[in-house]
Amino acid sequence: MATSPGHGEDSPYFAGLRAYDKDPYDPVHNPNGVIQMGLAENQVSIDLLENILSHHPDSAAIRTTALFQDYHGLQASTKGMACFMERIRGGRVKFDPNRIVLTAGATAANELLTFLLADPGDAFLVPTPYYPGFDRDLKWRTWVEIIPVDCYSSDGFQLSVGSLRAAYDRAESLKRRVKALLITNPSNPLGKAASRRRLEEAMDFAAEKRIHLISDEIYSGSVFSATEFVSLAEVVEARGAHNCASVHIVYSISKDLGLPGFRVGTVYSYDDRVVCAARRMSSFCLVSSQTQRTLATMLSDEEFTGRYLETNRKRLRERRKRVVGALREVGVECLKGDAGLFCWVNFGGFLEEKTTEGELRLWKLMLEDSKINVSPGSACHCAEPGWFRVCFANMSTETLDVALTRLQVFAEKTANEKKKTTTTRTSK
Amino acid sequence: MATSPGHGEDSPYFAGLRAYDKDPYDPVHNPNGVIQMGLAENQVSIDLLENILSHHPDSAAIRTTALFQDYHGLQASTKGMACFMERIRGGRVKFDPNRIVLTAGATAANELLTFLLADPGDAFLVPTPYYPGFDRDLKWRTWVEIIPVDCYSSDGFQLSVGSLRAAYDRAESLKRRVKALLITNPSNPLGKAASRRRLEEAMDFAAEKRIHLISDEIYSGSVFSATEFVSLAEVVEARGAHNCASVHIVYSISKDLGLPGFRVGTVYSYDDRVVCAARRMSSFCLVSSQTQRTLATMLSDEEFTGRYLETNRKRLRERRKRVVGALREVGVECLKGDAGLFCWVNFGGFLEEKTTEGELRLWKLMLEDSKINVSPGSACHCAEPGWFRVCFANMSTETLDVALTRLQVFAEKTANEKKKTTTTRTSK
Repeated sequence: MATSPGHGEDSPYFAGLRAYDKDPYDPVHNPNGVIQMGLAENQVSIDLLENILSHHPDSAAIRTTALFQDYHGLQASTKGMACFMERIRGGRVKFDPNRIVLTAGATAANELLTFLLADPGDAFLVPTPYYPGFDRDLKWRTWVEIIPVDCYSSDGFQLSVGSLRAAYDRAESLKRRVKALLITNPSNPLGKAASRRRLEEAMDFAAEKRIHLISDEIYSGSVFSATEFVSLAEVVEARGAHNCASVHIVYSISKDLGLPGFRVGTVYSYDDRVVCAARRMSSFCLVSSQTQRTLATMLSDEEFTGRYLETNRKRLRERRKRVVGALREVGVECLKGDAGLFCWVNFGGFLEEKTTEGELRLWKLMLEDSKINVSPGSACHCAEPGWFRVCFANMSTETLDVALTRLQVFAEKTANEKKKTTTTRTSK
Repeated sequence: MATSPGHGEDSPYFAGLRAYDKDPYDPVHNPNGVIQMGLAENQVSIDLLENILSHHPDSAAIRTTALFQDYHGLQASTKGMACFMERIRGGRVKFDPNRIVLTAGATAANELLTFLLADPGDAFLVPTPYYPGFDRDLKWRTWVEIIPVDCYSSDGFQLSVGSLRAAYDRAESLKRRVKALLITNPSNPLGKAASRRRLEEAMDFAAEKRIHLISDEIYSGSVFSATEFVSLAEVVEARGAHNCASVHIVYSISKDLGLPGFRVGTVYSYDDRVVCAARRMSSFCLVSSQTQRTLATMLSDEEFTGRYLETNRKRLRERRKRVVGALREVGVECLKGDAGLFCWVNFGGFLEEKTTEGELRLWKLMLEDSKINVSPGSACHCAEPGWFRVCFANMSTETLDVALTRLQVFAEKTANEKKKTTTTRTSK
């Protein structure tokens, strides 16, 4: 779709709208300019809106935001977003605001890229375990398939070229055309960032197979390791952006800034055609102009963004440490991680049987007996049963303490019962 | 898609999220409730956001809106939207807030319904002339086709059962399964509301063919005729909503309230399954929680909405009268209309030849010589060349005066030149 004229914007209706943009009438500065009578916009009662909203906090913005629905986004917002993304990456890469396409959250951004890069029946490679929402975001309306790239605990669930090749071959045997590899870095659910070497390998693989490479980096501002986070954008810059037109980055303020309610995501592409088509397609998922304005205010304050990122990282690191420590006390280990709002926890030792069914039984037990909801690895298409994603940032520290106590009690009780069962069986 | 499990929400990941909603932990009121560790939400630095936004008009709302991304929408917003839609219809119908699905504008709403009600390759019947954006909204990403239902000036471009049957038969001959009839009432580009009888006929036809009926009523609050606007919702209530599960209404605040920048649209369906699936699908096009809050404030003030609608109608009526009058002075007639932000104008007498090419030449001349952009009927798939949509609400009254003078000069000049050409030809 990125190169097809299906968007319909070549019609004279849209051509006329653009003709005005190039030479707009102004009674003083351009009295011979084009007058726009091709736009069904209502400005006749805007004074009444200003009036009703005068007691409302947003009154000042009404004239500037009421009508703004240009899919290029408010300049201050795309600029703010580009700056924030640069800041997260320690200023080691540049993002061009003209390549920022705003979307109503990363959900819309990921779907939009899928629509643009694949036709119905095509496939995307996605390393497992992956975010359970991808089944909806990438597949539901696009008719595109996901071919899982299985990663294993033996390698710390890292993406390997071997797994990529195996998945690609499986797609071929299923007669699926692979159009892209989508990685999430840092990984959700692993809570772990990829190394530069692994990113380079992924990029080499994508280049070899001539497929697109999408990096969903919505947790990039939530990396709290001592070593620096490496964005795919850095690998792109090292290799020269002109060589990397098939690389696309997804970002959002939902996780790092904790603002999912604002519905602000973005597609950043190094391919001009993708940027152009993504903009047009963003008509289906535009960000409220009012929210774009708030975003611009917030992100243009570099003192704030710097302090925010630092504090947020520190707090996340502390929370994670707390969770890992509490679980370790009862013999449960977390995957070594350095990012995100969750730990990837190995409850494999508690399973009655090492199957998805066994895993789901444990999940249900935890939910029903201990009243703790976590996400079972099978929901993330994890190839090994027994792993769970445990989120720790969506509650107060007091509630986290209660949760950790419940988890410890649950672990001890389950371990004891398992021991009893085993003893009984052995003594039989 | 409305009934398929492709949304992926049957997985334990989503089941766990729901389990929490049913029995949420609260340290005081529900200390034995479920603790949500399945949600990757970041609340750890919300105090910093409050801080940065304390100088910003939205500070008060940050705690309530930052995290709100439930696809049910803020209760106050869906309630406000339902009330506003009732008010527009003079209180003659009721809308259930639980059936209001919020979407990022009507663009997303129309696409969403197309996804839900049709499979790739299926067709929708759409009366012509229609809004040029429908080619994008209904077809681009869904792979659904539009079969035009041609309407003609001889019948005031009204929808007739004859045209519906002809279009349906054409779809059958093209081997297209027709899934829905989508009408726009009041019509864009006609600027005219449908009569109750025509609506009943459309509904009878849809029932006979067992297809869905969608009524896009985004201009319903911009009807300024002496007689009352009839919404499809009224026909539904008269027949009993339980008999009308295949009827769906689209609305938005972009036109009637002049707030396209806010990106607020809605799907209202009488079918529970469509409501449920539309909600899930709205994940791709959610409305900013911040904007939902502003909307709620605005629409809950009934004194305001009443006064707004009245004033807005009065102003639109006056503008239309001005346009119609100015064009009549130079012998150009508009279709009799009573709604919307535009007139449907017959420039047919100025065409060198009565073809789409002739029409587009006139459009180009008007744009290049007189610097007026209007929308040619062919962009709206009008079956008769020579008609143009002329918008009048997107500018100041002063600019409208300039525009009308330009149009009058253009009309007189073009008429004179045509006369000359004809005379020359005749005398040859």
